[in-house]
Amino acid sequence: MYKLSIDAMSGDLGSSIVVKACESFMKTHNDVELYVTGKEEELQSLKNISNIHIVHAPDIVGMNDGIMTVRRKKDSSMVKAVTLAKEGQVDGVVSCGSTAAFYTSAMLFLPRITGVEKSCLMAVIPTYNAKGVCMLDVGANAENTAEQLRDFAVMGNVYAQNIRGVSQPKVALLNIGAEDKKGNELHQETYQLLKNEDKINFIGNIEGREILLGEVDVVVTDGFSGNIALKTIEGTASLVMTMVKESLMSSLLGKIGAMFAKKSLSQLKKQFDYKSVGGALMMGFEKPVVKAHGASDEIAFENAMNLAYQMVKLDVVSQMKEGLNIK
Amino acid sequence: MYKLSIDAMSGDLGSSIVVKACESFMKTHNDVELYVTGKEEELQSLKNISNIHIVHAPDIVGMNDGIMTVRRKKDSSMVKAVTLAKEGQVDGVVSCGSTAAFYTSAMLFLPRITGVEKSCLMAVIPTYNAKGVCMLDVGANAENTAEQLRDFAVMGNVYAQNIRGVSQPKVALLNIGAEDKKGNELHQETYQLLKNEDKINFIGNIEGREILLGEVDVVVTDGFSGNIALKTIEGTASLVMTMVKESLMSSLLGKIGAMFAKKSLSQLKKQFDYKSVGGALMMGFEKPVVKAHGASDEIAFENAMNLAYQMVKLDVVSQMKEGLNIK
Repeated sequence: MYKLSIDAMSGDLGSSIVVKACESFMKTHNDVELYVTGKEEELQSLKNISNIHIVHAPDIVGMNDGIMTVRRKKDSSMVKAVTLAKEGQVDGVVSCGSTAAFYTSAMLFLPRITGVEKSCLMAVIPTYNAKGVCMLDVGANAENTAEQLRDFAVMGNVYAQNIRGVSQPKVALLNIGAEDKKGNELHQETYQLLKNEDKINFIGNIEGREILLGEVDVVVTDGFSGNIALKTIEGTASLVMTMVKESLMSSLLGKIGAMFAKKSLSQLKKQFDYKSVGGALMMGFEKPVVKAHGASDEIAFENAMNLAYQMVKLDVVSQMKEGLNIK
Repeated sequence: MYKLSIDAMSGDLGSSIVVKACESFMKTHNDVELYVTGKEEELQSLKNISNIHIVHAPDIVGMNDGIMTVRRKKDSSMVKAVTLAKEGQVDGVVSCGSTAAFYTSAMLFLPRITGVEKSCLMAVIPTYNAKGVCMLDVGANAENTAEQLRDFAVMGNVYAQNIRGVSQPKVALLNIGAEDKKGNELHQETYQLLKNEDKINFIGNIEGREILLGEVDVVVTDGFSGNIALKTIEGTASLVMTMVKESLMSSLLGKIGAMFAKKSLSQLKKQFDYKSVGGALMMGFEKPVVKAHGASDEIAFENAMNLAYQMVKLDVVSQMKEGLNIK
């Protein structure tokens, strides 16, 4: 049996969507045991489902709590879920709480893969060609070394192969120009390391404007630049969609047009709604740590559970170790 | 008389749009002399306009030439235009050639303001509220110090006040979180410098997703992050607009909708067409250096000329020196 701990309480929408996601997930998975952490009284409906264990956790790490709250709130659903992984009771963890707090919990309580200097955050970003692209680090670190970026590249590559089913993932370095001498010292050094890393298919630098084209599978970046890029994509996409809507509604012809085009536009908005895509992966820990977006609905949350399940079942962490030459 | 040198040849569209822009510009400016550099035979129609001097330059720096081409091509329209500024014959320079080559020419041939360690590139980005925001550095430097970022902030501030008419520009630092301790050492140090700089109205950090909201007037950033942010905005905005169009055209109702909404959408596209906005300013030189976009039409080019004219007339460089405490 594969075992997952599920933080039921920390999301914006409370426990109800997590409960629904767990119910639905268990209908299709008979090889999984769930340890659901949260207020017992809110998890009653899970009580009679076989292979679900309720782990009472009276406290909640709020979306706006400082990251160090997790040190104090040992009885919170989030810290309990991570602790279960630390103690070996589960193989992976899922939460839709605050990214910063969840990442801090993992850093405090979960062992990193030996030999991996820095863990990081990976996001899967929707692209023009619908393939999607993995980008890491998107903000766990304010600064990285070239060796750390090489580790990120290897881990991202293993993820793309195993979870996204890309046979020879194209790995690129986010930089300010195509040539190998572009960027600062860090990026020049990383370029050379990636070029000489025979486990990955390094195709060179890409620039900010190419991220969303979907022509590469893994974008490697330091946490600072990656965070700027990710948030700039989110902000720009959401703003342009808002402006399309407002622009249509500002004229009578536009309004008529919008009426006819409503379905097309809302489909597109969905595709580009980074919030609903949610789900960041925390990479570099001994066990898969999956973050569903804070405003996840039950479908998004179940997707995050499925991702954790796949990661555990395919033993992706072991393959990352292999890629990193770690025994 | 204010004197400007105009590179007529280096843009994607050749000299014809520059010729038209010069003709139109001179109809409304009788206090300007233009020195137009380029192939004499292509500039014949400017010959009889008073206050226009044609400076023959047989060579062209192509859009795809390496930046060091400018060292060899002393007889190019671009290098000649910059040289005229160096020699004191003109007060400002305008070109729509390759940004990298034009910036390199300025670096090679134009003096920097004494005391300014690094020059940089500033872009004016359209925002949701139509105010626009100045961002600098957007890619001239691969690495910057906190002191350099402070200089950028001061220069951006003077620009926003004088050219954009904002009385107390809000200046923000691009970072990966709002708190003063966010980011790497460079950003933490810059935060403190900006906070203590009484010549600017520093309002703190902003994140990538806030750039386009238009709530601040000047965004300060190192050249690496700024380039990532600028290109990510360009890529995302253009892609989302393309996807809106494709999404509409993929269904019959969408097509009908698009027909009615055509005008609204094309207005929006124009507003968000970063290419047509074009015009980056090279900051930190003794004379204004204005880059019109390579694919500029005559209107965009004339706008760039107008910007250079304003910069010269209002003596913005002197005010920057004052802001930087440079005599």
